[in-house]
Amino acid sequence: MVKMTIEEMAGYLDEVFPQVDGMFGIDRIDDELVVMRLLNHDRHLRPGGTVSGPAMFSLADVVAYVAVLAHVGREALAVTTHCSIDFMRKPEAGVDLLAEGRVLKMGRALAVIDVLLFSEGNRQPVAHASLTYSIPPKRTERAAG
Amino acid sequence: MVKMTIEEMAGYLDEVFPQVDGMFGIDRIDDELVVMRLLNHDRHLRPGGTVSGPAMFSLADVVAYVAVLAHVGREALAVTTHCSIDFMRKPEAGVDLLAEGRVLKMGRALAVIDVLLFSEGNRQPVAHASLTYSIPPKRTERAAG
Amino acid sequence: MVKMTIEEMAGYLDEVFPQVDGMFGIDRIDDELVVMRLLNHDRHLRPGGTVSGPAMFSLADVVAYVAVLAHVGREALAVTTHCSIDFMRKPEAGVDLLAEGRVLKMGRALAVIDVLLFSEGNRQPVAHASLTYSIPPKRTERAAG
Amino acid sequence: MVKMTIEEMAGYLDEVFPQVDGMFGIDRIDDELVVMRLLNHDRHLRPGGTVSGPAMFSLADVVAYVAVLAHVGREALAVTTHCSIDFMRKPEAGVDLLAEGRVLKMGRALAVIDVLLFSEGNRQPVAHASLTYSIPPKRTERAAG
Repeated sequence: MVKMTIEEMAGYLDEVFPQVDGMFGIDRIDDELVVMRLLNHDRHLRPGGTVSGPAMFSLADVVAYVAVLAHVGREALAVTTHCSIDFMRKPEAGVDLLAEGRVLKMGRALAVIDVLLFSEGNRQPVAHASLTYSIPPKRTERAAG
Repeated sequence: MVKMTIEEMAGYLDEVFPQVDGMFGIDRIDDELVVMRLLNHDRHLRPGGTVSGPAMFSLADVVAYVAVLAHVGREALAVTTHCSIDFMRKPEAGVDLLAEGRVLKMGRALAVIDVLLFSEGNRQPVAHASLTYSIPPKRTERAAG
Repeated sequence: MVKMTIEEMAGYLDEVFPQVDGMFGIDRIDDELVVMRLLNHDRHLRPGGTVSGPAMFSLADVVAYVAVLAHVGREALAVTTHCSIDFMRKPEAGVDLLAEGRVLKMGRALAVIDVLLFSEGNRQPVAHASLTYSIPPKRTERAAG
Repeated sequence: MVKMTIEEMAGYLDEVFPQVDGMFGIDRIDDELVVMRLLNHDRHLRPGGTVSGPAMFSLADVVAYVAVLAHVGREALAVTTHCSIDFMRKPEAGVDLLAEGRVLKMGRALAVIDVLLFSEGNRQPVAHASLTYSIPPKRTERAAG
């Protein structure tokens, strides 16, 4: 059961990552799926009008982070420990890049999230990523442990 | 045998990726190793003074790209097809983040590059990445093929 | 459109990989999905009754191979160039381990396949893998190229 | 500082993994490097005399496991949570396949190990893997925590 709404999540991201303000939009957060999009992506373009690899990585990383937060609640300390990403197709010019994140495992200490990136309106994936987040124990647990 | 000097490479990156101008410095290019650094990294900082995951990915990606170019020559079409990256330690505040790239395989169509990221002055790796670049056939080869 | 039936595929695997004869069963081959299972898996067990990591890797690898073959036809030279695999849960004892393979990209030279492993009767994934297969040009193409 | 000798480690592997008895040899265990080899590898051959992908995965996995054990001591519960492996060259026929494992991070809960596979006598890597092992807390710690 997700613990944060789109509005709560957007407010939280603005608070903890002010430097990416306006870079990402959140379309959907529920138990099955988190969907986000890369906004204002002109500044991420490479020659030929395509989105850069680092911008795609950023989008995959943030959708995984949001999927973890949605399940565990505000836990700003969750950190990426691993990402495997396959870049498969050139993103289409002139449309937004979307990312769908699915939680494959939400363990006590590790979460694994599967992410697919699409050009809006085309279901052939642009990239596919698997990310692992480490979820440090909460301060009270640590104090007790 | 590498085909481009540091100066030639720096000029080429400025030309094809003007949007990352001033973001990366090149310390070394030779047959064994490519070493680069993330410059002006204040703008890549996350709360707590650490470099963001996307900035580390960008640095790993560019050092792999430069390692490929150094071997095949100006071949702007080389594209990342895969990256696996492990984030292992928090980068140190106040020092540059360095990346060492080693070519593990330089095939006709695919190159595999191993990358280690360090905080300058500390050999314990901050992150470790393996990247695959696809090298499209040159236009003349394609025409013939 | 897949080019081989389950029977054709099973016969082909017996022919080219006689050493794994009887190790894997094929449940389904169609455009959307390939489903296979690890048979006789007593010999792959680790202490505690769980399937070993290498046996899970083998299953992920063969389902990806079959998914590629199903699309390109008998092409025994297709070779794994990369695999990223996350082991997430202990497989259940006493039931078969199943693998579902989905082709994410079927390019001219590279195919990317997503694989989920389950204990039969439980949809929580045991492991998740992404594999890349390299598809060498056919001999006639190579002769011409 | 490694905590187990080659003899102790070989005896321990025989005890916990009797099914792989005689499959692997240990050449070296010290703080810098663990070196192992795939023995009797006739039974792992694919058509053309090459070692199979699953056998290479097994070798990478065991060398990483041994590197973790060497650092933490007999801790049979250490489990692989992730492996990324690039297959780069065909192993040479008629010589042993060797694996070198280096610990990149030995954390409280996670260890990251870099592994290179070679054909004996040839330093061009056959495969390159990065593995993550999860190290569960010891029973006494868990009881306290």
